[in-house]
Amino acid sequence: MKIEHVGIAVKDLDTAVKTYGKLLNTPCYKREVVESEKVTTAFFRVGSTKVELLSAAGSGSAIEKFLEKRGEGIHHIAFEVDDIEKELTRLADDGFSLIDEKPRKGADNKWIAFVHPKDNHGVLIELCQSTG
Amino acid sequence: MKIEHVGIAVKDLDTAVKTYGKLLNTPCYKREVVESEKVTTAFFRVGSTKVELLSAAGSGSAIEKFLEKRGEGIHHIAFEVDDIEKELTRLADDGFSLIDEKPRKGADNKWIAFVHPKDNHGVLIELCQSTG
Repeated sequence: MKIEHVGIAVKDLDTAVKTYGKLLNTPCYKREVVESEKVTTAFFRVGSTKVELLSAAGSGSAIEKFLEKRGEGIHHIAFEVDDIEKELTRLADDGFSLIDEKPRKGADNKWIAFVHPKDNHGVLIELCQSTG
Repeated sequence: MKIEHVGIAVKDLDTAVKTYGKLLNTPCYKREVVESEKVTTAFFRVGSTKVELLSAAGSGSAIEKFLEKRGEGIHHIAFEVDDIEKELTRLADDGFSLIDEKPRKGADNKWIAFVHPKDNHGVLIELCQSTG
């Protein structure tokens, strides 16, 4: 397990891509719309980790709700795991509440699943595993 | 540059250390009080990255204010850099607002400096460099 990326909710993706390009001193290498999440993502490589910017791509999305409630800022931490199904079973057995009981296809060619913030001190956690 | 750690603000460090020990499936390897920040920290290794839990160790601390305003949750992202002074100069020249214009000693044997969230879409960013 390691931090694969940190997800940051932003209002205007174009503006944020410029800001983070300067901040991280590296260009955005990929933009991707995830239709199922109504979200547009933009990725930056920082060493062996990544930063993912997220903006709403439709009304009623989780990102839109987050922005309304909290404003812009860090949205989630994603941990890369070798076996996402095994980790989900382990966490459920340990009493954590899963948002996704089964992995689903996310951005950046990953299997992903979210763990609810309520059992881990307010932190939305994503588990991810490479599909390749 | 890479994500060195993510800092999470928690109310009760003992409870959170137990939770994150289970969540990350690894024990806390270090606790450290940073007197100058009035904060107690607890660290977990996750691959080549870390998770840092932060709780208030005195009234008037930044963590206490954060908890009052936002509740528990992700507090900052820390990026490891090779030359923190050079990065601070680069960011200041690029128009970012620095909380610390000069690096100072932080937890975990690091030189650290914070970049203000106001210019980067609400994200408190720490730069860190190993002192060793």
